[in-house]
Amino acid sequence: MGQTLQIERANHLKEKPDVSTVKFGTVFTDYMFTNRYTPEYGWSEPSIIPYQNLVLSPSCQAIHYGQSVFEGLKAYKSGEDVLLFRPDENFKRMNQSLSRLSMPEINEENALEALYELLKVERDWVPDGPGQSLYVRPFVFADEPFLGVRPSETYQFNIILSPVASYYGGQADPTSIYVEDDFVRSVRGGVGSAKVSGNYAASLLAQKKANELGYEQVLWLDGVDQKYVEEVGSMNIFFVRDGELVTPKLNGSILPGITRKSIIELAKYKGYTVREEKIHIDDLANDLHSGRITEVFGAGTAVVISPVGKLNIHGVDHIVNENQVGPISQELYDNLTDIQYGRAEDPFGWVVRI
Amino acid sequence: MGQTLQIERANHLKEKPDVSTVKFGTVFTDYMFTNRYTPEYGWSEPSIIPYQNLVLSPSCQAIHYGQSVFEGLKAYKSGEDVLLFRPDENFKRMNQSLSRLSMPEINEENALEALYELLKVERDWVPDGPGQSLYVRPFVFADEPFLGVRPSETYQFNIILSPVASYYGGQADPTSIYVEDDFVRSVRGGVGSAKVSGNYAASLLAQKKANELGYEQVLWLDGVDQKYVEEVGSMNIFFVRDGELVTPKLNGSILPGITRKSIIELAKYKGYTVREEKIHIDDLANDLHSGRITEVFGAGTAVVISPVGKLNIHGVDHIVNENQVGPISQELYDNLTDIQYGRAEDPFGWVVRI
Repeated sequence: MGQTLQIERANHLKEKPDVSTVKFGTVFTDYMFTNRYTPEYGWSEPSIIPYQNLVLSPSCQAIHYGQSVFEGLKAYKSGEDVLLFRPDENFKRMNQSLSRLSMPEINEENALEALYELLKVERDWVPDGPGQSLYVRPFVFADEPFLGVRPSETYQFNIILSPVASYYGGQADPTSIYVEDDFVRSVRGGVGSAKVSGNYAASLLAQKKANELGYEQVLWLDGVDQKYVEEVGSMNIFFVRDGELVTPKLNGSILPGITRKSIIELAKYKGYTVREEKIHIDDLANDLHSGRITEVFGAGTAVVISPVGKLNIHGVDHIVNENQVGPISQELYDNLTDIQYGRAEDPFGWVVRI
Repeated sequence: MGQTLQIERANHLKEKPDVSTVKFGTVFTDYMFTNRYTPEYGWSEPSIIPYQNLVLSPSCQAIHYGQSVFEGLKAYKSGEDVLLFRPDENFKRMNQSLSRLSMPEINEENALEALYELLKVERDWVPDGPGQSLYVRPFVFADEPFLGVRPSETYQFNIILSPVASYYGGQADPTSIYVEDDFVRSVRGGVGSAKVSGNYAASLLAQKKANELGYEQVLWLDGVDQKYVEEVGSMNIFFVRDGELVTPKLNGSILPGITRKSIIELAKYKGYTVREEKIHIDDLANDLHSGRITEVFGAGTAVVISPVGKLNIHGVDHIVNENQVGPISQELYDNLTDIQYGRAEDPFGWVVRI
């Protein structure tokens, strides 16, 4: 980047949909941000252009060899303003993902500025209904036309925007989870802590198995011992145990969620004790059985907080809080979304107002 | 598929390059095969079309969530004929990869027929110089425009062709290998035994580290104990120990190479004892040190057989066979390539003549 951001105007603007009826991730706005990396000039062609198809060689590196990373965050409407929640954290993590896949890092400040400009252009696309937001998807992928196992020489960095209601289509019932002890998502030394495309494709078969068994999500165990709790589907996981908040300690194979990090900071601020621990699945089962654990929830950008009502561990169903949303889950959800939507004070300086 | 294969002719044909000077995987022929999967009609649009760019939505599933698998095989010129080596094995493995990523399987017989038709059209692109071939790249990827973690509803199956000299640009010197004990390629329960795009991106950082340390390739250890030999870069690995051939036993995280399988069958046919074993890295070091192991080589489609002259294990360099190509490596290479190029009898029925 470093070059001036160019803006190319669209000839026609799309009709804006009724967001309450839109399926998550299927409608996109009029514009996108794009930048291109070449070995000679680095990231040197930042521009906002009409939303358009990618034209790629059939030998495009990302499709064959998977150099592709992404981020996800949301923009919220607050009166006339557009709010972003900790966008700097997303671009910081994106650089960690890029580095892990031997891809060139982006300039985080320039990326933030580009996103702000894009959101100014697309301000009218940020929906203002309850629970609605504009989902922001930055992604970088390798586009060199070349077959062979080595890093690409060229890349694209794009940001696309999609107006969304809530991830689960408004359904707020607690979710059910199947603890997977056959398939493995990641292992230390691998790429599990990076937000890379291959991790998601690799998770689909276990997700299908869980669905067929009657559960909505998968809880992954670690790849070495297959005994320690890692994460749920595409969320981090939290437990309320003896009134304290407990979540698996980051270990190199768990995705370091920004919602996870924010919940830890928010809960501490509110006086809760928060423990990041190695959690053995048998201890989890015992603590659910004995009632020490009173609430379970997943945490991620798309869902914010997703209460868990049932966990199947080694064939045994454990019902959490009578399959109802627990008070601490609800409190943290309310507090966090109030900050995100600008309805409450933001003592952390998390919100960027555009 | 099941539908009739359509052929769309190109208006202009490219000038054919001097293959001896072409870099591996950078030049493509005039035509490609393509087919499209929809939930309504399955794989229903098989056609041979002029080689052309892919036009994809910026929210294309494969780029964001990595549903993408591929295969690699070679077509050889033998007089006026074009030969393929065990192409049925490639489409069989492709279906295993597709299944692992929750993608729809292809009809293997139809895929073979489509490949034969494509090669008939592109017959003149199969080079006939020594060591030259037409590299065949079948690949399937998800192209639904959708953000969200679930399998795509639509897919593309393409085959592209690239005339190649030898993978290493003609260099036949034994390669050097660094045994990686920090980064991990795969773990049982993961996707290491499938040929999926994400596995390759995940391997690049270790490859870079090995290169910086002065080695050409990475030898991966298992993901659980980080003690057992798995595979090299994008090849399987073989050892000659006490005059017998030894290779790591397939365990769910090693790619089941077709060259690997063929070498095992060929060596047995020639009277060698072949052992598929769990190989501890310390035993490997001891056997290299004591001289029990006299040859080491990698095996894969692109390289066929790649002799290894040096292995670094836990910081110690082990020189193999005075960094020269060993007699058994050479014998198997000669036998295998003679079959592939139609220069020798094929007692196994491996070669398909078009």
